[in-house]
Amino acid sequence: MKIETLTIVGVGLIGGSIGLAARSRRLAARVLGVGRRQETLDQARALGALDETCLDLAQAVRQAEVAVFCTPVDQIARQVIETASGCAAGTLLTDAGSTKAAIVRAVEGRLPDGVAFVGSHPLAGSEKRGPEHARADLFEGRLTVVTPGETTPAPAVALAESFWQALGCEVRRMSPEEHDEALALTSHLPHLVAAALAGILPPESAGLTATGFRDTTRIAAGDPALWKAIFLQNRVPVLAALRKFRDRLDRFRNALDADDGEALDRLLSQAKKVRDALGN
Amino acid sequence: MKIETLTIVGVGLIGGSIGLAARSRRLAARVLGVGRRQETLDQARALGALDETCLDLAQAVRQAEVAVFCTPVDQIARQVIETASGCAAGTLLTDAGSTKAAIVRAVEGRLPDGVAFVGSHPLAGSEKRGPEHARADLFEGRLTVVTPGETTPAPAVALAESFWQALGCEVRRMSPEEHDEALALTSHLPHLVAAALAGILPPESAGLTATGFRDTTRIAAGDPALWKAIFLQNRVPVLAALRKFRDRLDRFRNALDADDGEALDRLLSQAKKVRDALGN
Repeated sequence: MKIETLTIVGVGLIGGSIGLAARSRRLAARVLGVGRRQETLDQARALGALDETCLDLAQAVRQAEVAVFCTPVDQIARQVIETASGCAAGTLLTDAGSTKAAIVRAVEGRLPDGVAFVGSHPLAGSEKRGPEHARADLFEGRLTVVTPGETTPAPAVALAESFWQALGCEVRRMSPEEHDEALALTSHLPHLVAAALAGILPPESAGLTATGFRDTTRIAAGDPALWKAIFLQNRVPVLAALRKFRDRLDRFRNALDADDGEALDRLLSQAKKVRDALGN
Repeated sequence: MKIETLTIVGVGLIGGSIGLAARSRRLAARVLGVGRRQETLDQARALGALDETCLDLAQAVRQAEVAVFCTPVDQIARQVIETASGCAAGTLLTDAGSTKAAIVRAVEGRLPDGVAFVGSHPLAGSEKRGPEHARADLFEGRLTVVTPGETTPAPAVALAESFWQALGCEVRRMSPEEHDEALALTSHLPHLVAAALAGILPPESAGLTATGFRDTTRIAAGDPALWKAIFLQNRVPVLAALRKFRDRLDRFRNALDADDGEALDRLLSQAKKVRDALGN
């Protein structure tokens, strides 16, 4: 795979890492970064993530053979629709958003002929932000979920999959709804839980936290605006995951209430088995 | 501080790390490890955590100037009471258990004259077990909470504090009940939450987890028997912490139900502020 111009919309941790990976793997003749702040773009270029920078979204996407939108999930669909009209036939638009159904459905049927959008979600990232945290190997061995809609052209889906594979990812295809339901539990609920736990820490107990509290709440340091948008776009699946979690908490509470060591042991042993199977 | 014989009861991650730290800091002329399995003791000695090993608990504690109990929390009080009768006047017994009130109250008034027990909890550890994970620097810069009862002699408390400081710890004095209430929230609740989250992961979604899920559930890999004992010993404070956590989850649920972005933003921003203040 060799792309003439790869446009990266939003050059933070994810966008910057795509740029670093694409340049180190010589995936594109030119990596063009677009964003709202010249300073961030300059920083990303200085770090080696971009060849060129641009402040005009439509102009940057128009030049792309492949454009990847790494902006907050509540901006992606609008940006895709607004910029697609200027694109040449054959252009592939994709994204890195953590929710998929709202984006894919909003874009569906609103693109010019020959321009395709293929929703994608690379399962990589961290609680950190900004191109200074970008890494060329962020995607190596990670999974990218590719979520075509019913009308997404098959060649565009294949191209999107090749793009993420070329960055080092493994690829898995799911419907946008399947993705959102699974990620509500594997990603969005953990964020909610971490934030709820961090949120109830009394200030005077901060010194009494150790690695357990710190690991369990680490992702609560993520950007509130980004996560608010994710929660709102994936409300219903997140509420369902939260119900499931509260039911499990009830089982722990009932075991504690009843001083039932056997029930606690069963719950803890089952959880350990699941966690052990995940590895580090 | 120079101890003639330091006896370590239970030579796993914590006991082994105490041995490594004591030996590398030349805190004791002799570090004697006691446990139930010769194989584990031999392993700990081979790793440099012990000078000598012993399978007889009473005999090992009898030789101690300082003995530290690193056994599961539901065994500590019984072991302390059983072994104290053989100790010389001036012997200091301490422990590393994650709960304090049940242990301190059970021991209180049941020791021979001149033998003191000072409850302690070094806030260090991990989900791993066994002397092979012990580290000489496990306690460096970490906090140990020392929890005297009303009748604990002041010189023994001071000696216990010196002991933990000599291992590299900072020391903070709290009542056993204060400790248990605070740790219910900063340590025991996170374990329960991590286990509840790991426990509801559908097997088919394991591949869709990334660092967020893994960080948040890491401690769920801890030993179920150890944690069952901790939960049962600290039931009431853990139930109170769980209520507080569920109330916070309710606020997230209500915000999601109402599609209330501002409320979500407030909750997430407050959590981020708390988490940012903790550092890594």
